Amino acid sequence: MALKVGIIGASGYTGSELIRLAAGHPEISIEYVTANQYKGMAVSDLYPHLTGVYDGKYESFDLDTAIAKADVFFLALPHGKAMEVAPDILEAGCKVIDLSGDFRLSDPTVYEVWYKKEHTRPDLIEKAVYGLPEIYEEKIKKASFVSNPGCYPTGAILALAPLLSEGLIDTEGIVINSLSGVSGAGREPKPETHFCKVEGSLTAYKVGGIHQHTPEIEQYLSDIASKPIVISFTPHLMPISRGILTTAYTDAVGSTSLDELLDLYKLYYKGKTFVHILPRGQYPQTKNVAGSNYCHIGLAFDERTNKIIVISAIDNLVKGASGQAIQNLNIMMGFPQDMGLKHAGLMP
Amino acid sequence: MALKVGIIGASGYTGSELIRLAAGHPEISIEYVTANQYKGMAVSDLYPHLTGVYDGKYESFDLDTAIAKADVFFLALPHGKAMEVAPDILEAGCKVIDLSGDFRLSDPTVYEVWYKKEHTRPDLIEKAVYGLPEIYEEKIKKASFVSNPGCYPTGAILALAPLLSEGLIDTEGIVINSLSGVSGAGREPKPETHFCKVEGSLTAYKVGGIHQHTPEIEQYLSDIASKPIVISFTPHLMPISRGILTTAYTDAVGSTSLDELLDLYKLYYKGKTFVHILPRGQYPQTKNVAGSNYCHIGLAFDERTNKIIVISAIDNLVKGASGQAIQNLNIMMGFPQDMGLKHAGLMP
Amino acid sequence: MALKVGIIGASGYTGSELIRLAAGHPEISIEYVTANQYKGMAVSDLYPHLTGVYDGKYESFDLDTAIAKADVFFLALPHGKAMEVAPDILEAGCKVIDLSGDFRLSDPTVYEVWYKKEHTRPDLIEKAVYGLPEIYEEKIKKASFVSNPGCYPTGAILALAPLLSEGLIDTEGIVINSLSGVSGAGREPKPETHFCKVEGSLTAYKVGGIHQHTPEIEQYLSDIASKPIVISFTPHLMPISRGILTTAYTDAVGSTSLDELLDLYKLYYKGKTFVHILPRGQYPQTKNVAGSNYCHIGLAFDERTNKIIVISAIDNLVKGASGQAIQNLNIMMGFPQDMGLKHAGLMP
Amino acid sequence: MALKVGIIGASGYTGSELIRLAAGHPEISIEYVTANQYKGMAVSDLYPHLTGVYDGKYESFDLDTAIAKADVFFLALPHGKAMEVAPDILEAGCKVIDLSGDFRLSDPTVYEVWYKKEHTRPDLIEKAVYGLPEIYEEKIKKASFVSNPGCYPTGAILALAPLLSEGLIDTEGIVINSLSGVSGAGREPKPETHFCKVEGSLTAYKVGGIHQHTPEIEQYLSDIASKPIVISFTPHLMPISRGILTTAYTDAVGSTSLDELLDLYKLYYKGKTFVHILPRGQYPQTKNVAGSNYCHIGLAFDERTNKIIVISAIDNLVKGASGQAIQNLNIMMGFPQDMGLKHAGLMP
Repeated sequence: MALKVGIIGASGYTGSELIRLAAGHPEISIEYVTANQYKGMAVSDLYPHLTGVYDGKYESFDLDTAIAKADVFFLALPHGKAMEVAPDILEAGCKVIDLSGDFRLSDPTVYEVWYKKEHTRPDLIEKAVYGLPEIYEEKIKKASFVSNPGCYPTGAILALAPLLSEGLIDTEGIVINSLSGVSGAGREPKPETHFCKVEGSLTAYKVGGIHQHTPEIEQYLSDIASKPIVISFTPHLMPISRGILTTAYTDAVGSTSLDELLDLYKLYYKGKTFVHILPRGQYPQTKNVAGSNYCHIGLAFDERTNKIIVISAIDNLVKGASGQAIQNLNIMMGFPQDMGLKHAGLMP
Repeated sequence: MALKVGIIGASGYTGSELIRLAAGHPEISIEYVTANQYKGMAVSDLYPHLTGVYDGKYESFDLDTAIAKADVFFLALPHGKAMEVAPDILEAGCKVIDLSGDFRLSDPTVYEVWYKKEHTRPDLIEKAVYGLPEIYEEKIKKASFVSNPGCYPTGAILALAPLLSEGLIDTEGIVINSLSGVSGAGREPKPETHFCKVEGSLTAYKVGGIHQHTPEIEQYLSDIASKPIVISFTPHLMPISRGILTTAYTDAVGSTSLDELLDLYKLYYKGKTFVHILPRGQYPQTKNVAGSNYCHIGLAFDERTNKIIVISAIDNLVKGASGQAIQNLNIMMGFPQDMGLKHAGLMP
Repeated sequence: MALKVGIIGASGYTGSELIRLAAGHPEISIEYVTANQYKGMAVSDLYPHLTGVYDGKYESFDLDTAIAKADVFFLALPHGKAMEVAPDILEAGCKVIDLSGDFRLSDPTVYEVWYKKEHTRPDLIEKAVYGLPEIYEEKIKKASFVSNPGCYPTGAILALAPLLSEGLIDTEGIVINSLSGVSGAGREPKPETHFCKVEGSLTAYKVGGIHQHTPEIEQYLSDIASKPIVISFTPHLMPISRGILTTAYTDAVGSTSLDELLDLYKLYYKGKTFVHILPRGQYPQTKNVAGSNYCHIGLAFDERTNKIIVISAIDNLVKGASGQAIQNLNIMMGFPQDMGLKHAGLMP
Repeated sequence: MALKVGIIGASGYTGSELIRLAAGHPEISIEYVTANQYKGMAVSDLYPHLTGVYDGKYESFDLDTAIAKADVFFLALPHGKAMEVAPDILEAGCKVIDLSGDFRLSDPTVYEVWYKKEHTRPDLIEKAVYGLPEIYEEKIKKASFVSNPGCYPTGAILALAPLLSEGLIDTEGIVINSLSGVSGAGREPKPETHFCKVEGSLTAYKVGGIHQHTPEIEQYLSDIASKPIVISFTPHLMPISRGILTTAYTDAVGSTSLDELLDLYKLYYKGKTFVHILPRGQYPQTKNVAGSNYCHIGLAFDERTNKIIVISAIDNLVKGASGQAIQNLNIMMGFPQDMGLKHAGLMP
């Protein structure tokens, strides 16, 4: 019998991706899909690409209905809203995978500084397991509450984890330059997401270390490195719909070589289905992972400057959000980790 | 036990799509993949998006090896090459789905005029069943040799079949204006497919009724209408990778209304999984079918001019090529028609 | 001494293009730029590409200030607003070039049907000269009130005028298939202009002969043909920022040939700086006219169907709006017609 | 009387841009345009956007013809070819502006390492003045041989010059992350520039400090800083045609603030027409400088990490190549520096 899931806040892009992926998952049955604003509308009216794939309607969220209909819930709500909804669902004994930023940071005061919101449920933070399966699989297996990583942190942490885990780089001075597709800015039309502003243009935003994903990246890199890490992170908005390309610049400590680094990465991610280390001289292209749950990583070592440069590519909506959420559900439920997620990127 | 398939000529876009789709098909095992030019190269080196999805190598085509390894073959060869390879494979008792234009036209002299090549195997033409499942499913079921439709013809025929089948339009004066993504021009770099030439630009090509898909569209529309149809067809090259949008202009005979037309289309395509008729006032967007085997159709009736305008959208590489080839294989083998093809378009 | 001009309603794309072009015009001095919503804001804050090119601020519109500051006014206001502002400026003895649709249709009841607005100044319609210089130059020379053509009508009329003027085509059954860039939808963010919805996608809109430019095209084609013309016009939204590609399908009457047609077009547009007839076998690309005031036209004759197919490309914001407005001003003021407009399209 | 110029190697993108810009320059007369491969072809057949703007033909290069026809020459030849042609033209007493990399590096052995070519005219290197007018205007004034900067170096040097000139940053550890449009890869079709590979994708190339612009950036930054500078430079290929966005990461020495930095940049570039420092909180968008000779610079200071982040945007074909070449010509000839270059970027 299929697992009954609910998707709360399903009118945005991460919501529609959850529906797309869950509808193709052999062990999932979508039982409850909410979007208060679109109550009663067919999902395929808002997202015609789901016609014939999921034929349900948006409902308005109601706790009792929710827990009567489903056993596991994805929360695709805005930051601040998830912490209002998650506690009751958890209390009712259901599992929750939260795609917001509400429960990713261990220190609620850090949350309040970066998200500019009060954290109303600091008590729940320690119950949430950070859902980056390549690093925290064992914890996720036992979790009933998973906090799904942010899109930039997924790309950045996967790029840097092996180096920091092995102590191969200076932990100071790490630069993370990230390029994101526009879907990361959400479905709501804004001047910055107008086609004419984005098309043919490259730009940066939240420059100067002020993006709210900064402390998330730092917290988990620090955990992996077993020492405090402070990074310089700059996000850019790119004229593509999907994809994040992260170029990380680090200073090698001691002598190394590209071959050693490639071996290290292959070993570190051995058995991790969704991480591919590209051969020497090849670098990730976001299109190769578009629509898929894969993360491609390429490496270079610059002997002149002693810099190790690591480049990762993910689809921000899949490995950076909804696909990773499904991967977490698979782990929580004991399904094979790649169930419903085996499809390739869409190229060309 | 899985069905053993071979993909001949797999270095182009339709070839890589066949691999992508076949690799995700539960009843298919890819046993043989050829591309003479890339013999010995890992498929994932040419197409990194297939890393972890298909890990085989390109082989050089050899008939004996082919028929020893597989039972069904997709031919993704250029026009003119398929007619060299198909006969031997068929003679060995294997099934063939040919994605080239070599066996689509019933009259070899028409082929020679439009393709500017001699047809060396006219004897085989009548053995080939035209693989447009929404129209010719019964014939495909019994076929061992299927000629897979062209991309433009798929979009155009699905758009017009109901009107012609029911005799609702003047069979003279049909205008078919089609817009195609660049992947239709193939993987080979050419001046016309250079990013800087295509990006931000709209253009037409082969204007004046000279595109080789013209007689294919006419032949099957004539078959459906049971009378000769001559069309005016103009293809355009658009700054997208995947997708064909076809806008067909026809003159209504007798009185009609949009509601009647929508009902007719829904009835005509009832039970056809991959054709969706959009509600009144909605029109297809190619992105909604990107990567999927769906065809979306929208309709309008202009009372002032008595024109019925039909718009269809497909992914030229999927419903317009490799997805339809898999659909044909499903029908030929008695699998459910949508096996391995149920995924939604990739939007956003 | 430079001519003093005012630009009323300058916060949209046609407004910013007027500023860009007027700033580079050797005989124009921009004296007054209004946008009530942005009063006091530097133009270059809304449009950073104008930094260093025009350093003024938006003002709130005031009639007395306007006529004190400038002698010629461009109205880049929404439909319905221009008819509120134009009369007073004209009455003050200033010249007006109106880029809205308010004064393009000779019959105010037609305006009311298609624009769904009451026409409050029908008395002024006959004073407005339609500003398509390649056809109506003599009238524009004497005009003090020019109604600047719509973007689609500019492309469509220039494509068809020679054929209709010479009586070479059936005046019934003309199909005009137009593809437009997103800037035609304006600067205001809307769901349809969100980057993620447009990028990688092709779609049609206002299908069924309901776009408000339809009667404008018909009125002027009728004038040129000296008989009533009814057309079937379908606009499409394309993933580019600038450009309109119009593919017009017509039925030849009598015998003709491509050479005759090319000669006719070259003769018809002889001396018209901004219209280029492309050589046999070449077709317009919108990018070749991006940012420029040129219109490129290509022709084909399909003997099988007796169709003459004409394709034109313009930049919707330049020849389709602000460039043509400057061209009209040049004619009205006795400047060389191409003054300030001689730059090439931006390719690549 | 207009200055007679020749453009040698004019079939590529920098060549066509030189024609576009020179054709609109009031004091330039284009007398000689060569492209051996296209001898006899009309320029507007290869570049239809130049129809009506420049109506000459490509000639085959011949020294005697060249010096008989023109007095100043732009060399838009591939690296290695310019050093074959420049010496003879210079010897004939003509002025040369060389857009290749042949004479940018002061040490020919460095050239040979990075360009993998022998330098056959090391004697001429010291005669060439580096044509970055915002830094070397005085030298350019007196030069008859200008070596025009590379595209990446232009964006990188303008971004960093004020900081290094004033000694405000650590000269070690500078990271330069650059994003370029596809036109930088040239007009020749290649697998990497195929639309389907670039569209919707982000990628890096020549990772690991191996791009040949690295020593050029280092040489001139060292000159500005008066001490040796070694940088870590990573170029990326972006799905746009024109534009380079450079994000430079530097470590502040001593205390500073964003306001101080903005003031410094405004002062440093005071009177430099083509460099605009954006207000606090605004960052460059490449589209705002598309087609123009402007460079937009935005700044941020991250107090947490003590990093100064500088972002610059240029059009790689204009300020990064042909526009800067015209600017150099203006300076060499005593024309106003912005003659023929005053137009705004093309936005939207």
